[in-house]
Amino acid sequence: MERPRTVADKIPGYDYGSANVAKSPITLQEFEQLKHSATFTEEDEHWLRVAGDILADQTEELVGKWREVIAAQKHLARCSQKPDGEKDARYSERSGLRFQQWILDTCLRPYDQDWLNYQQEMALRHTSVKKNKTDNVRSAPTIHLRHVIAFNAVLG
Amino acid sequence: MERPRTVADKIPGYDYGSANVAKSPITLQEFEQLKHSATFTEEDEHWLRVAGDILADQTEELVGKWREVIAAQKHLARCSQKPDGEKDARYSERSGLRFQQWILDTCLRPYDQDWLNYQQEMALRHTSVKKNKTDNVRSAPTIHLRHVIAFNAVLG
Amino acid sequence: MERPRTVADKIPGYDYGSANVAKSPITLQEFEQLKHSATFTEEDEHWLRVAGDILADQTEELVGKWREVIAAQKHLARCSQKPDGEKDARYSERSGLRFQQWILDTCLRPYDQDWLNYQQEMALRHTSVKKNKTDNVRSAPTIHLRHVIAFNAVLG
Amino acid sequence: MERPRTVADKIPGYDYGSANVAKSPITLQEFEQLKHSATFTEEDEHWLRVAGDILADQTEELVGKWREVIAAQKHLARCSQKPDGEKDARYSERSGLRFQQWILDTCLRPYDQDWLNYQQEMALRHTSVKKNKTDNVRSAPTIHLRHVIAFNAVLG
Repeated sequence: MERPRTVADKIPGYDYGSANVAKSPITLQEFEQLKHSATFTEEDEHWLRVAGDILADQTEELVGKWREVIAAQKHLARCSQKPDGEKDARYSERSGLRFQQWILDTCLRPYDQDWLNYQQEMALRHTSVKKNKTDNVRSAPTIHLRHVIAFNAVLG
Repeated sequence: MERPRTVADKIPGYDYGSANVAKSPITLQEFEQLKHSATFTEEDEHWLRVAGDILADQTEELVGKWREVIAAQKHLARCSQKPDGEKDARYSERSGLRFQQWILDTCLRPYDQDWLNYQQEMALRHTSVKKNKTDNVRSAPTIHLRHVIAFNAVLG
Repeated sequence: MERPRTVADKIPGYDYGSANVAKSPITLQEFEQLKHSATFTEEDEHWLRVAGDILADQTEELVGKWREVIAAQKHLARCSQKPDGEKDARYSERSGLRFQQWILDTCLRPYDQDWLNYQQEMALRHTSVKKNKTDNVRSAPTIHLRHVIAFNAVLG
Repeated sequence: MERPRTVADKIPGYDYGSANVAKSPITLQEFEQLKHSATFTEEDEHWLRVAGDILADQTEELVGKWREVIAAQKHLARCSQKPDGEKDARYSERSGLRFQQWILDTCLRPYDQDWLNYQQEMALRHTSVKKNKTDNVRSAPTIHLRHVIAFNAVLG
């Protein structure tokens, strides 16, 4: 098996495929249905692979641009700040590496059970169940789903 | 005040602005933040108005196309079918009119408290709390949020 | 109509029956079913009225006892503390009065639409949607439902 | 290690401790906090063990009594019926055995990670995520949490 492409040798808190991560409550069969709902096809998958190859050395830049959007909006910026509004360099670096790696995983990983589980893990890390725990930080306790959905307009 | 543009004189179960609809749990101020998260600007609003004017006499066609996608996928098609898999013409017609009207409301209505409340109302009507009740039908009990989100790829 | 019994002339943030409160997503008919699920009868209602009459001048003492349990547990105590772990006297007083009033409302109010709506309002005030907003305080952002349910063992 | 006490040699769909079950999103440490919120002590645990020993040969009778309450209420009865309101003997038998076993597990199992995971698994089996799938039946698609909570008045 090929080694997955990663943005760094060691990415703190990046537990893809490990036993520590959550288990998705939806099955692979339900995931197939979800792809159909989005009319996601093998062709889309093909182009994601192509995009992944191209983006592989631009992940830092991309995340940088997205974070500019986040930094410009107080209600988003606080999601990664300390309670007093100060920046948290360590948290930013760790989550930033994972954010970069998310680009590669989204484009290049096989969409299998491990992938599905990690989507659940990442989701939980945006909620009060697991937010801040991976990096042992004090920051905003949750990122409301509505903002995650809305931010897709920026990512897209 | 101008009368809102509607796709029919009477749209069954269309309770926009009435006291029957749910009350959004989020405030207008939080809604403003949500727009910012999506980098939604006055320019976007302007173009939505323009789109609304153009789409106003194509709503039936648009909904028809979307419903072709839905009909082609068993797990989506059942959302509007009877439990035995038969079509329900009355339900389709009523919800179809509201689906058409949703296009106009999305493009043309002021994004105020009434608008916000009706988003909540429509959301509840896709969940086990209110699905099927507006039209007093027997059909799939819920449409999982993940499919609603995924279907945006078709609507977009 | 009789005036409802209250623990104080003015209870800050106590919006029972006002247009500001949430609207329950469940109907009165569904509420009836809920009573049946709990085998809640008119006899139970009768004894709640009796209890309410007795408890009416003990609400402060009761809330005081419950708060001792809360104070003794760090993960519960922080629900009403400032982020740095300090007490917030103003918040405690305001929410304390509402906590007392909750006893009376639970025992003595008619279980009608206003009652149902206020259950929803109180629920939202324990979640990230409305926690801390009523009193404009900085404190724990949510009280997880599992702890609310567990705490019933203390209230009971 | 002692073999856990079970109500039958083979209990269909009873996956306690297996890799098939969900993984609880809360940690053992958070579970400890939950016990504290309910003021659940080692003494309570002791008496649960005692109760488990006593109830071990009464599980069928107990479940029978609870099911009488369920059967008497249409909105609860339908949770285990076919869509047309007919009984489903096979489903009732399978879920009945698991219901009995739940009594033993609640009283007698160690409250460890496996226990915690199985609480999550059972919870999911009451929601639209997993309801009906274990037994491959057609029945009510979900049991709303409010009714699960309310029914505790019967179980208690």
